[in-house]
Amino acid sequence: MRSVLVLNGPNLNLLGTRQPEVYGSTTLNMVEDACVAHGATMGLDVVCFQSNHEGDLIDQIHKAKGTHLGIVLNAGAYTHTSIALHDAIASVELPVVEVHLSNIHAREDFRHRSYIAPVAIGQICGFGAKGYLLALDALNARLEEM
Amino acid sequence: MRSVLVLNGPNLNLLGTRQPEVYGSTTLNMVEDACVAHGATMGLDVVCFQSNHEGDLIDQIHKAKGTHLGIVLNAGAYTHTSIALHDAIASVELPVVEVHLSNIHAREDFRHRSYIAPVAIGQICGFGAKGYLLALDALNARLEEM
Amino acid sequence: MRSVLVLNGPNLNLLGTRQPEVYGSTTLNMVEDACVAHGATMGLDVVCFQSNHEGDLIDQIHKAKGTHLGIVLNAGAYTHTSIALHDAIASVELPVVEVHLSNIHAREDFRHRSYIAPVAIGQICGFGAKGYLLALDALNARLEEM
Amino acid sequence: MRSVLVLNGPNLNLLGTRQPEVYGSTTLNMVEDACVAHGATMGLDVVCFQSNHEGDLIDQIHKAKGTHLGIVLNAGAYTHTSIALHDAIASVELPVVEVHLSNIHAREDFRHRSYIAPVAIGQICGFGAKGYLLALDALNARLEEM
Amino acid sequence: MRSVLVLNGPNLNLLGTRQPEVYGSTTLNMVEDACVAHGATMGLDVVCFQSNHEGDLIDQIHKAKGTHLGIVLNAGAYTHTSIALHDAIASVELPVVEVHLSNIHAREDFRHRSYIAPVAIGQICGFGAKGYLLALDALNARLEEM
Amino acid sequence: MRSVLVLNGPNLNLLGTRQPEVYGSTTLNMVEDACVAHGATMGLDVVCFQSNHEGDLIDQIHKAKGTHLGIVLNAGAYTHTSIALHDAIASVELPVVEVHLSNIHAREDFRHRSYIAPVAIGQICGFGAKGYLLALDALNARLEEM
Amino acid sequence: MRSVLVLNGPNLNLLGTRQPEVYGSTTLNMVEDACVAHGATMGLDVVCFQSNHEGDLIDQIHKAKGTHLGIVLNAGAYTHTSIALHDAIASVELPVVEVHLSNIHAREDFRHRSYIAPVAIGQICGFGAKGYLLALDALNARLEEM
Amino acid sequence: MRSVLVLNGPNLNLLGTRQPEVYGSTTLNMVEDACVAHGATMGLDVVCFQSNHEGDLIDQIHKAKGTHLGIVLNAGAYTHTSIALHDAIASVELPVVEVHLSNIHAREDFRHRSYIAPVAIGQICGFGAKGYLLALDALNARLEEM
Amino acid sequence: MRSVLVLNGPNLNLLGTRQPEVYGSTTLNMVEDACVAHGATMGLDVVCFQSNHEGDLIDQIHKAKGTHLGIVLNAGAYTHTSIALHDAIASVELPVVEVHLSNIHAREDFRHRSYIAPVAIGQICGFGAKGYLLALDALNARLEEM
Amino acid sequence: MRSVLVLNGPNLNLLGTRQPEVYGSTTLNMVEDACVAHGATMGLDVVCFQSNHEGDLIDQIHKAKGTHLGIVLNAGAYTHTSIALHDAIASVELPVVEVHLSNIHAREDFRHRSYIAPVAIGQICGFGAKGYLLALDALNARLEEM
Amino acid sequence: MRSVLVLNGPNLNLLGTRQPEVYGSTTLNMVEDACVAHGATMGLDVVCFQSNHEGDLIDQIHKAKGTHLGIVLNAGAYTHTSIALHDAIASVELPVVEVHLSNIHAREDFRHRSYIAPVAIGQICGFGAKGYLLALDALNARLEEM
Amino acid sequence: MRSVLVLNGPNLNLLGTRQPEVYGSTTLNMVEDACVAHGATMGLDVVCFQSNHEGDLIDQIHKAKGTHLGIVLNAGAYTHTSIALHDAIASVELPVVEVHLSNIHAREDFRHRSYIAPVAIGQICGFGAKGYLLALDALNARLEEM
Repeated sequence: MRSVLVLNGPNLNLLGTRQPEVYGSTTLNMVEDACVAHGATMGLDVVCFQSNHEGDLIDQIHKAKGTHLGIVLNAGAYTHTSIALHDAIASVELPVVEVHLSNIHAREDFRHRSYIAPVAIGQICGFGAKGYLLALDALNARLEEM
Repeated sequence: MRSVLVLNGPNLNLLGTRQPEVYGSTTLNMVEDACVAHGATMGLDVVCFQSNHEGDLIDQIHKAKGTHLGIVLNAGAYTHTSIALHDAIASVELPVVEVHLSNIHAREDFRHRSYIAPVAIGQICGFGAKGYLLALDALNARLEEM
Repeated sequence: MRSVLVLNGPNLNLLGTRQPEVYGSTTLNMVEDACVAHGATMGLDVVCFQSNHEGDLIDQIHKAKGTHLGIVLNAGAYTHTSIALHDAIASVELPVVEVHLSNIHAREDFRHRSYIAPVAIGQICGFGAKGYLLALDALNARLEEM
Repeated sequence: MRSVLVLNGPNLNLLGTRQPEVYGSTTLNMVEDACVAHGATMGLDVVCFQSNHEGDLIDQIHKAKGTHLGIVLNAGAYTHTSIALHDAIASVELPVVEVHLSNIHAREDFRHRSYIAPVAIGQICGFGAKGYLLALDALNARLEEM
Repeated sequence: MRSVLVLNGPNLNLLGTRQPEVYGSTTLNMVEDACVAHGATMGLDVVCFQSNHEGDLIDQIHKAKGTHLGIVLNAGAYTHTSIALHDAIASVELPVVEVHLSNIHAREDFRHRSYIAPVAIGQICGFGAKGYLLALDALNARLEEM
Repeated sequence: MRSVLVLNGPNLNLLGTRQPEVYGSTTLNMVEDACVAHGATMGLDVVCFQSNHEGDLIDQIHKAKGTHLGIVLNAGAYTHTSIALHDAIASVELPVVEVHLSNIHAREDFRHRSYIAPVAIGQICGFGAKGYLLALDALNARLEEM
Repeated sequence: MRSVLVLNGPNLNLLGTRQPEVYGSTTLNMVEDACVAHGATMGLDVVCFQSNHEGDLIDQIHKAKGTHLGIVLNAGAYTHTSIALHDAIASVELPVVEVHLSNIHAREDFRHRSYIAPVAIGQICGFGAKGYLLALDALNARLEEM
Repeated sequence: MRSVLVLNGPNLNLLGTRQPEVYGSTTLNMVEDACVAHGATMGLDVVCFQSNHEGDLIDQIHKAKGTHLGIVLNAGAYTHTSIALHDAIASVELPVVEVHLSNIHAREDFRHRSYIAPVAIGQICGFGAKGYLLALDALNARLEEM
Repeated sequence: MRSVLVLNGPNLNLLGTRQPEVYGSTTLNMVEDACVAHGATMGLDVVCFQSNHEGDLIDQIHKAKGTHLGIVLNAGAYTHTSIALHDAIASVELPVVEVHLSNIHAREDFRHRSYIAPVAIGQICGFGAKGYLLALDALNARLEEM
Repeated sequence: MRSVLVLNGPNLNLLGTRQPEVYGSTTLNMVEDACVAHGATMGLDVVCFQSNHEGDLIDQIHKAKGTHLGIVLNAGAYTHTSIALHDAIASVELPVVEVHLSNIHAREDFRHRSYIAPVAIGQICGFGAKGYLLALDALNARLEEM
Repeated sequence: MRSVLVLNGPNLNLLGTRQPEVYGSTTLNMVEDACVAHGATMGLDVVCFQSNHEGDLIDQIHKAKGTHLGIVLNAGAYTHTSIALHDAIASVELPVVEVHLSNIHAREDFRHRSYIAPVAIGQICGFGAKGYLLALDALNARLEEM
Repeated sequence: MRSVLVLNGPNLNLLGTRQPEVYGSTTLNMVEDACVAHGATMGLDVVCFQSNHEGDLIDQIHKAKGTHLGIVLNAGAYTHTSIALHDAIASVELPVVEVHLSNIHAREDFRHRSYIAPVAIGQICGFGAKGYLLALDALNARLEEM
């Protein structure tokens, strides 16, 4: 079965409890379960991982090569500061879909720059937990083209 | 039946013929037909409009109020320069999903700023014609919450 | 009788319905009627025009030469982006009073720059519909000096 | 009787003698007399004060609270440099109309920024001494709404 | 016969009447007639079009494909603000020579940036009406190489 | 007895009445009394001074030399604009503790720069009136080291 | 008993040995002991943690919720680069006092920006180890208000 | 006899005691006496004034008109922040020679900009007290040309 | 006979061998010969000079006064860095046409600024060796107007 | 025997597999073996460590003090973002040679800034794996001077 | 006898003929003669040199060491662009007085930065040829202190 | 025998006498002799050249083509200002190793930008005279690969 990685970065473990007026009340577990279920409908085996450690995220991206066909990545705040994640993605040459719960382009200036974007297929932001499912759709469409 | 507007801006009429290495070979008609078909599966009546004129796009957004429940908007290059479109969206208070064929954040600097983003629900970019269908999904999800 | 043009730009047709907490509840018709009435008290024939199209506004400014003695201009969002309107005003050499409903200097940064200002006599902003009447007063005072 | 303050900042005492090609030949006394006369027609008691000292202007704004209903303020060059005046206005919570003799937006870059604007109702500039009378009209209109 | 388009943007219809100290006293008709005559000497059928509407200019560029072999474009003030025109030129893949009456690099800062330049063969500016004839020479030289 | 100066700048005389949601409801007199009392517990004679005049603050800093052992300074809005205060502190070579009622780093951008900081021992901000007492503690600790 | 966390970031483990001319000769153990002792005088149970790992600091902030009433945070160099720490603090909604040994505003430009400040109560910097005790005082004052 | 004003700004009263490694050990009195003596050799009556108050400096410049033929001005730190002094000089239309004790262009960036320079004849900096005598020479040379 | 100077700057001696994909395969000798021949058809005596030394170019411009009626100048990379060449042109008050082989506005950012432009009649770039002939045409047209 | 540390940062574990067109095909093991061998020829005991975790790199630098005489550091992407690594190096006061496989100054703008450089002896970049050996030479030369 | 060098840079050979409205009508020979004469009154042997070549100026500064006691330098436009001249001055460790005919701080922005200033004693500008004599006075005063 | 050029720019002739605390006490002759000797050990014929003239350096680079196999270039201060040198290197298509005695990235901001870097293989800086030998090693390694 085809496998993809759903990778979540810093603070996303608090999803559902953290600033619900910005990020909604769905928990990370619920999001991950929905991803697994949605992936199954497309014949995708969805594996989920979350860490607050930049190095862990890099390690996971490295390991994804040969294991997964692509990545749905919400790098959280590291999106805006991590050239190392940019390089990790460029290194493994897997298709990556960038996702954000909130519309980062409508928030503070320091959230407008994404170091993930130049090495991602595309970006989906502003649709809350629903965005992960759209990202899986987009990734699957890309995988089917390859 | 619930109606939504799919609004396309400058140069998108050339879709399929314009720089296919960047924008793909699907024509605008094909995209619009796919939108109508996809909308139908969700009970959405999808109406499409394209213009190269900034003023026409503003007029259409104004008319959308009372006619449509929301807008999927690819404002093309006006995305990066039109405060007038920003104001038009703010004026009608309809949910707008911003879509772009290419990943604008991975292209020239002058395509990184969006005047649409601060008044849109969210943004989907980089997935070609597929992005419009994802945008309709996202818009529909929002409409069902309202 | 001396004639002046009151020219309104994008989204001002929605006046009264658009974001009333920012722009007030007076409609454009009411503003225009008040301008005509106020102009009459000064012996000014006030003609009004509104368009969402940058090109239409340029056309009107061109036509104003030889028809009107001066212009009260609310260029809306084009104020901040249109060098073409700047050039149009410079071309016709008519006195122009710039007016804005809201205090643009107290809003987003991108509303602080005016391309109209360098070719206008002066600017009045922040006083809602009342600003148009003040602008007519200012224009009339200038015309009487000429 | 309702009282308002017309407050003038640095170098405005030289009005009429200073660079008349920029600021006109009317003296400050004449402007103040015209303000008093114009105010009287609206039932406003106009009190005038001028100082070249930033601290004096702050002191006057503080004293205005409880004495005057509003302020017409031409802060001169302090407009562009004084956060302290900004804070003084914010502290007293009186309506302030910002006025400038010349069109500051059409002059040097360092005159484009106003620290007064974010705490003023609105701005009138470019109409010479006439601008003070328009400012009183605008202030009166606001006072009548309150 | 080989055909080329001479396309003029906003305010160029006023040529000869607008700020003659900057732009000279030749009218647009005279310029267009000179272009037609000069083209004829090189075996070029010169077709001329002018509009103050950005959308019209985009439409004309789109239509040029298949009709004309190349474009001499004076986009006027849109040169500095229109990414949409940039995209239109990139879309049709016709050789474009950018021309300006005045030396834009010697004027205000906001006239120094050209969105046309990155998609044009080259730029000719500062030579008044003569510049159009030089542009036709340059375009013809390029066409003969192709 | 060891003496220190508590020096307050523009608008701080309004403390307790000015924007209480930002600055709290304690008056300047209350703050000064608390400083005197707190100083007494450490054997410090606390002298207080406030002015809205930049020049007065400079004069006080000059006079402090030979009179006081150090200064607790809340320069208010002059913090962000006064190089003259910077120079005054550098001239007298007394230890200065910079204090602000609000957290200036969490407010408008123009409040992020401090010209006092490079010539102060340290900065305390965001703790309201309590900050003055902490500043006295910090100053006393420094004096005891000297 | 009320508990608070004293959290130290990168390189602070070297305190006392690292650049003593900038940071003093007190070791981290000594600082932590002083914090515990000082906290005890106020009825605060002070728990200390240090890590050079950004992820560890985020984890600790997450765990603080429900365990501690507030945090004294010296994020070291992460202060200037970590949006992830910013988000972690915003997520747990505990009062945080930002502390720095040196006066960061008097050092290199890249130390002037704090991503912690917008989500902290206030900031104390420049007073060496003494700053931690002042920070506990400030935190305790805030806790007593709540 | 011809009279000129030597005007000194903030902190210059401390000359000789303030940071002697930067500004030398000559006192302001000594500088002023040297100016008077040097002026006398050229038939110039030198009058001296110093204030730490920006408003006082503006007042003196205003009064200089009709009393003095020119001004030697060391505006101290106000050089870099005061548009009001800029305007005062422009208003009185007297020749002004700008002088600084230290070489401001070799110090902090915020001392590189002078608001005095655009309205002064010229600038002399870096030569300590000697610079005032050179400035008088330069002013006298200008006066003899007039 | 009327004489003009064709002046070439650094690296243009390598023309035809240097990066032919950017600059074409025509050598400098061929360009100069073509200029002489083209000039002859207009009754212009064309003199050519090339140097890699900024000082030599300045010397030549100085000597042109009284010898030549105008200059066609390709200053190469000095275009973007040499204020000294700017001043040399301003000093001799001869008409100068700026020419570049490549479209400098479509290349690296550091090639977008021209110090020559503010003192030149106009600019021609992007047309390879052909640009020199167009420049001679433009210069001749200007000379005939004088 | 004298010992030095060769420390590699994020993504360098992928060396030889990651973007070989940029970084070459030599693996990290091969590079480390070459370093050990090359060190041996100079009497240096070379110890190697790699991690994708910023905190691990900081920990290693701390531990180097007292163990190693110096460090050859390729901090990868953390070079451009980590002030914490900057501080770690400053803390341990060991000589550090900065090395990069690619010429970072010839790549994206965000790779031009190095936070390592201000605390390193020098920098070697662009020579692939060979750069490590040059770095050891440079470090050894420095150690022999000490 | 004590010897000093008066060194002039690009375009100063044209003095008296170049833009006399900016630089006056005195020729360079006249200025140099005046310098020699003025130097003689102070016991200074003044040697003069001018070149349009940056390298020549560097060579002269190098040779000055051991020959001259100091330099009066008008580097012309190289003032704003030449780090090499900056380094040459720093290398020879001779006192340098920077002089400019015009007030560079009142002209175009690109003339505001001086690379000479950080390595010069001081700067004199705006006084035309007189400035050279003042510069000799300033240099002599410095030499007498040494 | 294989020949390479060691090319030194402005002020490097002073090496050993110029600011020895920054650049060391080795003279240029000593460095050049060491280069020749070191080259010989690798079978490289090292030819050395130094000039303070930008044009001379360009000329030498041009002549290197066909004579030398590569260049070790220390362009001194021209590194940061010369686009002409950048273009010269690009023109000859020889491998160039950029070397600097000091660590330019740890000095003034204006030394951080290198126009040489984008057209060089790599950069070595901060190792004094030793850097030239490392540069020869690096160049030789590259030559052996070709």
